[in-house]
Amino acid sequence: MIYLDYAAATPVSDKAVKAMLPYFSDDFFNPSAAYLPAVNVRRAYEAAKDDIAHVIGAKGADLVMTSGATEATNLAFSLIAANQDEEVLISAVEHPSVIENAKRVGKYQTVNVDKNGRVDIDDFKAKLTAKTHFISICLVSSELGTIQPISDLARIVTEERQRRAFAGERTPLYFHIDASQGLGLMEVKINRLGVDLITLNAAKVYGPKGIGALYVGHNVRLKPLAVGGGQEMGLRSGTENVPATIAFAAAITEAEKHLNGERKRLQMLKTKFRQSLADLPNICFLGKEKIQLVNFLPITLPGLDAERLIYALEDREVYVSTGAACAASKGVKSATLQAIGLSDEEIAGSLRITMGKFTDEESIAEASKIIHEVVMAELQRLAK
Amino acid sequence: MIYLDYAAATPVSDKAVKAMLPYFSDDFFNPSAAYLPAVNVRRAYEAAKDDIAHVIGAKGADLVMTSGATEATNLAFSLIAANQDEEVLISAVEHPSVIENAKRVGKYQTVNVDKNGRVDIDDFKAKLTAKTHFISICLVSSELGTIQPISDLARIVTEERQRRAFAGERTPLYFHIDASQGLGLMEVKINRLGVDLITLNAAKVYGPKGIGALYVGHNVRLKPLAVGGGQEMGLRSGTENVPATIAFAAAITEAEKHLNGERKRLQMLKTKFRQSLADLPNICFLGKEKIQLVNFLPITLPGLDAERLIYALEDREVYVSTGAACAASKGVKSATLQAIGLSDEEIAGSLRITMGKFTDEESIAEASKIIHEVVMAELQRLAK
Repeated sequence: MIYLDYAAATPVSDKAVKAMLPYFSDDFFNPSAAYLPAVNVRRAYEAAKDDIAHVIGAKGADLVMTSGATEATNLAFSLIAANQDEEVLISAVEHPSVIENAKRVGKYQTVNVDKNGRVDIDDFKAKLTAKTHFISICLVSSELGTIQPISDLARIVTEERQRRAFAGERTPLYFHIDASQGLGLMEVKINRLGVDLITLNAAKVYGPKGIGALYVGHNVRLKPLAVGGGQEMGLRSGTENVPATIAFAAAITEAEKHLNGERKRLQMLKTKFRQSLADLPNICFLGKEKIQLVNFLPITLPGLDAERLIYALEDREVYVSTGAACAASKGVKSATLQAIGLSDEEIAGSLRITMGKFTDEESIAEASKIIHEVVMAELQRLAK
Repeated sequence: MIYLDYAAATPVSDKAVKAMLPYFSDDFFNPSAAYLPAVNVRRAYEAAKDDIAHVIGAKGADLVMTSGATEATNLAFSLIAANQDEEVLISAVEHPSVIENAKRVGKYQTVNVDKNGRVDIDDFKAKLTAKTHFISICLVSSELGTIQPISDLARIVTEERQRRAFAGERTPLYFHIDASQGLGLMEVKINRLGVDLITLNAAKVYGPKGIGALYVGHNVRLKPLAVGGGQEMGLRSGTENVPATIAFAAAITEAEKHLNGERKRLQMLKTKFRQSLADLPNICFLGKEKIQLVNFLPITLPGLDAERLIYALEDREVYVSTGAACAASKGVKSATLQAIGLSDEEIAGSLRITMGKFTDEESIAEASKIIHEVVMAELQRLAK
């Protein structure tokens, strides 16, 4: 089996599984209980939060643990109420969790992207008005792997805040990013990014599903989605998911430790993989390598049907996707691929190849061979 | 170690851990992906939902999986908007997740309970007005173990619905129960209970933390708390927590299989435990055995300080709690114990003892001995 869909899901690392196992059985106590074994569970939980926060240069107390990226992003959007006169700004290459929240708020603008899916800075400046209250941009596009110029955007946001302060305008302005893609494969540091809120996701960095976090900058006052026992400083009630948080910490710490080596390794594999695919008829590599997350290799084979290719590749045990898994399962045309100006034919022929920990030279050579065979067979079938 | 706080948290059963392990490593795929291994994960996930639903006599499609009981209860409350003229009805012995939601809605009434914590049916009738839109009552009080007369209340609700239909009144009326306590130790069947929404929780039935579900009756139209990829029929976006759902199914199926035997075993233990504690000076057993969940043995020792007792018991490795773990950690006086008319002294001296799977004759005999010694030492200290 050759798995090339790491952007959709990652296996949980052995270290992460080992780290959480004791918290299912021996250390299962409710962290809110008063007796010592429960207090120890609370301490381990808080230490895990610190470890996760440390990776982005924050403290555990800055994080609200959630059930994943989607909940974290929804919690960030709690800053804006649907009945206000204030606007949301998103990009044209956002995940459904951002798009649907913007739609729910009602008033939102969409910033254009260039042909690589990168946010158009001039358009961002133009659409950032005095009414903008909340900005949500992905750190990395989940379909193209394109890394957004977050710190540049953050500087513009700071300028707008200064302008408002100077003009005596009181509309607050918050900048949220979703770092689900990117975390563990690139530096994500709060002081360099200059944003207020960051969505983090364990399931894309070899941690378990069902756990994520929202980094919340100081002076940001969120409203909880769910109320109750008052856990997570009242922002996220419900018994803390101790084992998953411990596993998230183990996974992200491990990824961070190997960050540079893994980037180099994947960069080398990507170059080889790209070269080996370059002779496919009409192939077009999407995005721009210099600003693309190192494990992404999105392509399009215009004239072919990506769905058919995926099933043909599946028969040979090579697993890739057509785009973000969420959108793919619903059969809708990718908004991201439309936004970068692809034709319907190019969109229909697009495959998202994403590499990860268990991708090696042998597997990409084999995958390349199989992709060639499948594409050739498909071209022959169509030529008949 | 003698753990007697099963109402706060249960260890994850070996079967549940074993069931979920493959879904961390080999079967980690995103259930929304198109290729066969991911489709198989989707199938296993749906089968697990069916297994969970089966326990309450429902189908998998009737459940919205959540990150736990608190989220499920919050989702149920999405039926009522804060700006409506309609009211919520709760009981005086609810969990903070219900109380805080009622407060957030704004307009709510609290039904009185009797000295055992059981809902006063006449008061329920009186407070169920033409404006009542949503009712939320726990199946079992988490502090007293008192089982509420849910089917009797449901009959009253049905009568009120019929009255409204006959009178041409259009205010809908929904009945939600939180079955977090009770599930796995008593029958919880939708057709017998006659309610619209049921909160289910894995972490109290030897499943993992971080997973729960809301049973949603037909014709009930919820609003999602979090939007995004549209999972769970659009009611709960975010990648499905496959391993935890599989573990929940394994745990609840196991509990259901042994339900009758375990109830008998715990009843026998409870009787012995109760007898062995009966000679403690001034002890008062809370609740009424006939309508109390079989693993609950809440007591009060007026004149003593339960906090001190807990720490003294902790030194001897006996773990009990003062009340619901959530409330206990915040040092607030239990609303439940106030509602049943306990004096401040009785509240201050109250301990919640709850038994479970690993409680046996030996451990209750030992616990009883230690409780006696700790109470006597405390009485001697106070007599000085």
